[in-house]
Amino acid sequence: MSKGVKIVTIGGGSSYTPELVEGFINRYEEFPVSELWLVDVEAGREKLDIVGNLAKRMVKKAGLPMAIHLTLDRKEALKGADFVTTQFRVGLLDARAKDERIPAKHGVIGQETNGPGGLFKGLRTIPVILDIIQDMEEHCPDAWLVNFTNPAGMVTEAVFRHTSFRKIVGLCNVPIGMEMGIAKLLEVDHSRIRIDFAGLNHMVYGLDVYLDGVSVKDKVIDMLSNPEHSSFVKNIDGQGWEVEFIRGLDALTCPYHMYYYKTDEMLKKSIESYEKGETRAEVVMKLEKELFELYKDPELAIKPPQLAERGGAYYSDAAVRLITSIYNDKRDIQPVNTMNNGAIASVPSDSAVEVSCVITKEGPIPIAVGDIPVAARGLVQQIKSFEIISTDAAVTGDYDKAMLAMTINPLVPSDVVAKKILDEMLEGHKEFLPRFFD
Amino acid sequence: MSKGVKIVTIGGGSSYTPELVEGFINRYEEFPVSELWLVDVEAGREKLDIVGNLAKRMVKKAGLPMAIHLTLDRKEALKGADFVTTQFRVGLLDARAKDERIPAKHGVIGQETNGPGGLFKGLRTIPVILDIIQDMEEHCPDAWLVNFTNPAGMVTEAVFRHTSFRKIVGLCNVPIGMEMGIAKLLEVDHSRIRIDFAGLNHMVYGLDVYLDGVSVKDKVIDMLSNPEHSSFVKNIDGQGWEVEFIRGLDALTCPYHMYYYKTDEMLKKSIESYEKGETRAEVVMKLEKELFELYKDPELAIKPPQLAERGGAYYSDAAVRLITSIYNDKRDIQPVNTMNNGAIASVPSDSAVEVSCVITKEGPIPIAVGDIPVAARGLVQQIKSFEIISTDAAVTGDYDKAMLAMTINPLVPSDVVAKKILDEMLEGHKEFLPRFFD
Amino acid sequence: MSKGVKIVTIGGGSSYTPELVEGFINRYEEFPVSELWLVDVEAGREKLDIVGNLAKRMVKKAGLPMAIHLTLDRKEALKGADFVTTQFRVGLLDARAKDERIPAKHGVIGQETNGPGGLFKGLRTIPVILDIIQDMEEHCPDAWLVNFTNPAGMVTEAVFRHTSFRKIVGLCNVPIGMEMGIAKLLEVDHSRIRIDFAGLNHMVYGLDVYLDGVSVKDKVIDMLSNPEHSSFVKNIDGQGWEVEFIRGLDALTCPYHMYYYKTDEMLKKSIESYEKGETRAEVVMKLEKELFELYKDPELAIKPPQLAERGGAYYSDAAVRLITSIYNDKRDIQPVNTMNNGAIASVPSDSAVEVSCVITKEGPIPIAVGDIPVAARGLVQQIKSFEIISTDAAVTGDYDKAMLAMTINPLVPSDVVAKKILDEMLEGHKEFLPRFFD
Amino acid sequence: MSKGVKIVTIGGGSSYTPELVEGFINRYEEFPVSELWLVDVEAGREKLDIVGNLAKRMVKKAGLPMAIHLTLDRKEALKGADFVTTQFRVGLLDARAKDERIPAKHGVIGQETNGPGGLFKGLRTIPVILDIIQDMEEHCPDAWLVNFTNPAGMVTEAVFRHTSFRKIVGLCNVPIGMEMGIAKLLEVDHSRIRIDFAGLNHMVYGLDVYLDGVSVKDKVIDMLSNPEHSSFVKNIDGQGWEVEFIRGLDALTCPYHMYYYKTDEMLKKSIESYEKGETRAEVVMKLEKELFELYKDPELAIKPPQLAERGGAYYSDAAVRLITSIYNDKRDIQPVNTMNNGAIASVPSDSAVEVSCVITKEGPIPIAVGDIPVAARGLVQQIKSFEIISTDAAVTGDYDKAMLAMTINPLVPSDVVAKKILDEMLEGHKEFLPRFFD
Repeated sequence: MSKGVKIVTIGGGSSYTPELVEGFINRYEEFPVSELWLVDVEAGREKLDIVGNLAKRMVKKAGLPMAIHLTLDRKEALKGADFVTTQFRVGLLDARAKDERIPAKHGVIGQETNGPGGLFKGLRTIPVILDIIQDMEEHCPDAWLVNFTNPAGMVTEAVFRHTSFRKIVGLCNVPIGMEMGIAKLLEVDHSRIRIDFAGLNHMVYGLDVYLDGVSVKDKVIDMLSNPEHSSFVKNIDGQGWEVEFIRGLDALTCPYHMYYYKTDEMLKKSIESYEKGETRAEVVMKLEKELFELYKDPELAIKPPQLAERGGAYYSDAAVRLITSIYNDKRDIQPVNTMNNGAIASVPSDSAVEVSCVITKEGPIPIAVGDIPVAARGLVQQIKSFEIISTDAAVTGDYDKAMLAMTINPLVPSDVVAKKILDEMLEGHKEFLPRFFD
Repeated sequence: MSKGVKIVTIGGGSSYTPELVEGFINRYEEFPVSELWLVDVEAGREKLDIVGNLAKRMVKKAGLPMAIHLTLDRKEALKGADFVTTQFRVGLLDARAKDERIPAKHGVIGQETNGPGGLFKGLRTIPVILDIIQDMEEHCPDAWLVNFTNPAGMVTEAVFRHTSFRKIVGLCNVPIGMEMGIAKLLEVDHSRIRIDFAGLNHMVYGLDVYLDGVSVKDKVIDMLSNPEHSSFVKNIDGQGWEVEFIRGLDALTCPYHMYYYKTDEMLKKSIESYEKGETRAEVVMKLEKELFELYKDPELAIKPPQLAERGGAYYSDAAVRLITSIYNDKRDIQPVNTMNNGAIASVPSDSAVEVSCVITKEGPIPIAVGDIPVAARGLVQQIKSFEIISTDAAVTGDYDKAMLAMTINPLVPSDVVAKKILDEMLEGHKEFLPRFFD
Repeated sequence: MSKGVKIVTIGGGSSYTPELVEGFINRYEEFPVSELWLVDVEAGREKLDIVGNLAKRMVKKAGLPMAIHLTLDRKEALKGADFVTTQFRVGLLDARAKDERIPAKHGVIGQETNGPGGLFKGLRTIPVILDIIQDMEEHCPDAWLVNFTNPAGMVTEAVFRHTSFRKIVGLCNVPIGMEMGIAKLLEVDHSRIRIDFAGLNHMVYGLDVYLDGVSVKDKVIDMLSNPEHSSFVKNIDGQGWEVEFIRGLDALTCPYHMYYYKTDEMLKKSIESYEKGETRAEVVMKLEKELFELYKDPELAIKPPQLAERGGAYYSDAAVRLITSIYNDKRDIQPVNTMNNGAIASVPSDSAVEVSCVITKEGPIPIAVGDIPVAARGLVQQIKSFEIISTDAAVTGDYDKAMLAMTINPLVPSDVVAKKILDEMLEGHKEFLPRFFD
Repeated sequence: MSKGVKIVTIGGGSSYTPELVEGFINRYEEFPVSELWLVDVEAGREKLDIVGNLAKRMVKKAGLPMAIHLTLDRKEALKGADFVTTQFRVGLLDARAKDERIPAKHGVIGQETNGPGGLFKGLRTIPVILDIIQDMEEHCPDAWLVNFTNPAGMVTEAVFRHTSFRKIVGLCNVPIGMEMGIAKLLEVDHSRIRIDFAGLNHMVYGLDVYLDGVSVKDKVIDMLSNPEHSSFVKNIDGQGWEVEFIRGLDALTCPYHMYYYKTDEMLKKSIESYEKGETRAEVVMKLEKELFELYKDPELAIKPPQLAERGGAYYSDAAVRLITSIYNDKRDIQPVNTMNNGAIASVPSDSAVEVSCVITKEGPIPIAVGDIPVAARGLVQQIKSFEIISTDAAVTGDYDKAMLAMTINPLVPSDVVAKKILDEMLEGHKEFLPRFFD
């Protein structure tokens, strides 16, 4: 690969792109990107131009021979790619708003990954991912697909269940955020903290946490029940656990666990946001507007600090670190979404999990953690069942399967409510769900 | 065993006892009970006398040489027993009322088996079961323990996890009720219906249903979404499923599934009952009072028909059928609670499950069903995790474990609410929870 | 099925057929066969006529309305069949002689099921079985295939791995022979003995043995080390185990275990038989010749007693008992070859095993035995691996896979010897191995 | 640990010790050993003195502040140790000679790890290891036990099955030898080769092999069938595989596989060596004699190059690399013997395996390889069963278990031969087998 690396970013007009570009610039020495293709769809053309031009200015300022290409022609972009990253949003933030607002209207948390919103984000996204994979098999069969598009766990599961393509890694910034948060909590440098991660995307547990290789789990668990400490990532409002619960669990939680172990409180917030027109989608729309205004500034040639508020903290670091390790066969350990392969005993061996992996040129190899705590197995299996059935619904367009997924979701309180939300969301997202309406 | 069989019934003063006696009378020819010892505690002495005398009249009327013994001395009763049955309630119906009312006060379904009520019923019951087993090991080491005491799944799990005793079978009338209900639905005789059962106690699924050996699952599933059909057992108000949900699930549900797939609706009813002072415990107290008035009648020498309303439908049939099959090594198939042993792939092999078994003189052997539907695995695992942690809490008296069990229960909406219910219930049941207060 | 049952027996000209006919006659009342089609190939036409005429005389003597049809047209025969049985031998006894003689020449036991002979019997048989299944799917999609053709375990495995057909049961007379042998040993009636079987075909273990439902395993194991007792079936010369070995194993062995736990002694016998021209194939050829002479006798209208010496003891009983139980949804317990489904923990869930099953109209359901003894797991897994790879070789005609199967067989002492035997056997069986030579 | 590391080497008088000392000297910067205690038993006092003095000269020459202590008092040595290594031989090479000669006399390969010799080496060694662990729990509860004593797999299994001690890692130089051999084969530097190892000790497979992170398995497998290439380690005479066999297997073998896939040829060599009085034990005795003569030389202050011929190639590197990685929480990947934990699907989760692991301060974590090839599963399970039953025999002194282990060993051809070898070996090793003779 002395020719340099070709990267294709699908959904290149995303506000996150400057993060990624910054990452490639910083790691250029060990990971020499020669071409970065930003691909988007017609509806995203304007954003693509704005972001693309910022990217060009960033590269120029860094003085690196990294060519930035902007295109709406995905197949053209994919030719001969080494890595493909995906960070698109079918239906843009309008769709996310529906994912959050329709459930809220029926008194249910929308939750755009593992909740009712996640089901619909999956139904819209999975067919597009499968199309991209088909294109990759034709135009860049040796490339790795690094997926940041949510619901990342469900997307990975869909690829394992419904294709024979295996060069996919799902990535999320939650685990790195947990490590950063704990480092901050303990007032030590991030590099000294290691967590054994195991679970699913947005449902990952820290089975143990080490400072310089020595377990500090008990200390951290005590700190976790202190309200001021539980806020590991910016985009979810943290609140402390009842100390006896978290001690009984004996594992670290991720921020999304609050939806399941503090459902009442989170639901109350969801309803308030809904009523005030301040759902996460609506907040992000506003943030994005401001970001794109900044991006337009022809003087701007770095990632603006305001991007951190968007929720993409550590994103650059996680993404570029992963790709660099694959490229260089680093065999270091990173938490990613990949096939379980027996690493977590109570999850099916051929399912997608989020788990600490050795990152090699041939992909991630999970480390065998044994099992997650007994108390976590039910919830993890419930989300896994939800993911599996959702992917089947996405691929087949089968109404009964979508209804089944909606009803068994732990945030949905009954089959009757499930049906109401389902029908309203199907109607609302109709244009992006051809498999259900053809 | 030509000498005739010795049965010991712990909790012999229960209003259910006439059911059991009727069963023994009806099957006397193939299962010749020569001694039936009804054992109770001091607080139940009066009921024991009433029920015991009815039992004596029943046997006399039947003209059988079956001696009825009434005693408060458990060890004396157990000497040389062949079968021990348990149907006691620690704290009587007053305790059940608390199991239902305290959660309801906090807006949560109490549910005395797999809900918060079940946790506390388990905490009170498990230590007593372990004591009984210790007595059995000393006084009748070859006897089988047939447990009807709820939560039957959790009790069986506790014995597997915390003792080396293996001669226990847990029994419930829900599966037989489902078979009877479906027979009625299809307007055929019960003997022509067979269901492949798999799951947990009060969380059991019918993987397939046969009429004369031929699957009629699809037909039955369609009927299940009809509100008038779903009421398989008397003591839960049935209401039909959304047809697309049950078709998606592609398995038969048991009545208790309504707590999980119709939580909203069931909660509403719970709160109403609580507010009207008509929780199930309160209803049953009234029923029992009436039953004991009937039992007192010296002219009564049969099981009174009003007992059926108590919820014990098919109980006699299920219990005596099971014991008779063990005694005679019948090798017929019955659904019971026993060790999984690989029969259901997604449940740990050494856990208690409710599954169709071959009943032999050496105990039940589960049939290997493969696995329950994907959609059911999460909920089943969640209840299994709840059961496991609850048994550990019961044995250790560990507050953190009790708090963990309460928080992960799918009916409990948050750790904050869990703690409130937990503390109030611990206080309310204090006298029956020495392991938590010593 | 009030019209009576239609049976098709492929390989109908076999000397075993009178056994089967006798079985159908004896069970006519509960299993009313109205048509029995005996199918064979051109090379077996003469035998088919002889056996077919005997069958007609037997039915006539019994006075039953059972029509016997003789044909070389398999598809015609299959139309509308209810059960298909297979008992053919591709290449007839000449092929078996090669299966035994070629390995013996190289100092290796041939063993026509789990040894090098079994590999080649599988390579010849599996493609024919797959053809029959294709015909069945077209002409009698609801029929059950009851396979007696050896290697029965490998054939069942092949169907599970390489087709989506699931209505197959593999049957062997070894388990029933073990029960009969133990009944004889204990001098009790066969009906009082039950064994929990688990393992593979010709590699099955008795995990426990009961007399009237009570375990007598220890007693039987002691008897097994007595040379005069270990001879459970006629066609293998028994000799007792070292008592400390069988006590350590703590399970019943089947006669074929002698090939693996007494390899030296069995090899010596094999070589002797080979040198004297008295391999099993050669002995059976002589026996068959005599049998067919008997069958020709127009006065003969019953199964001649000499057939028992052929090795088919209890065959009628096992086969007809199985078919009758499927037909009548009897739900009794019989050992058959079927999909494991978790019944034996250390064998893959989707592999064929020989295990005690509940026999229903929808097929056999294995009972969950937990696991076979630790000491048995290696050998069982080794034969299972051998079976799996042999089926892949049979279907693909891949030389490397055949070589792999031959080398890992526990009777084959090295890759060098494996190659010699393999090449000579491929050449010898050339005409029946089109997938290897096309 | 700023005080420097304290190492205790049990069996310190071994001829291998200079390897280890060299390793500690070379890695002193990242792994500062301040005390090295060499412990031996009375019978080894002379060797201990010779080796110990060489060690002192080596350290002096290196100019490092590493104190060498020689002692026969194990408990004294263990006080406050950080790492304990074991490399002793109960009964010394005389015992090994019996392990090899007695089976050979009966026409069986002795094989001192996974053969009959291994059973007896295990019976002698395991009780001593369990004693050492008891001492460690008292005198250095935080120390790691790094076991080089063979049979390393069986020893690790024994600790997992019969103690609650978990700070043990078993180490072998076979995997590193395979990597070195392949590097040589491909004429590249060792650091560029990586193998995914999975299996058991002396029964390990290379599931894939990478050059600079890219799989070169097919190329290597082709080379492996070339006789001149298969000799990866010095102490087993290599000979090439039949190419179709190794292509069918599709995995790398270790040198010990020749005992199982070339049994005939290896047996022939064993018998020849036995007859010539040149078994491996006898050869090594001679080599050791020469080595100790060299060691005595007061001018010698380095590891003499002749040690490489002893069979300990790469030993220093493997051992010190492992300990250094634990000490420094390096999280690099090394193949060691540890608990499976789901890493290899077809081996029980709680059994010892030899598998690529991430090496952390809290011990090795295996990487989830999925499974070994189907063709390898039987042999691996057979050796695992042999190991398990051997450890049970070692701990209990139960004759039946020893007999069972001997009979199921794949190198032993029958129960009759097993008993002869067993009895003769028990007698021969009597003084080291108190659990069998008390």
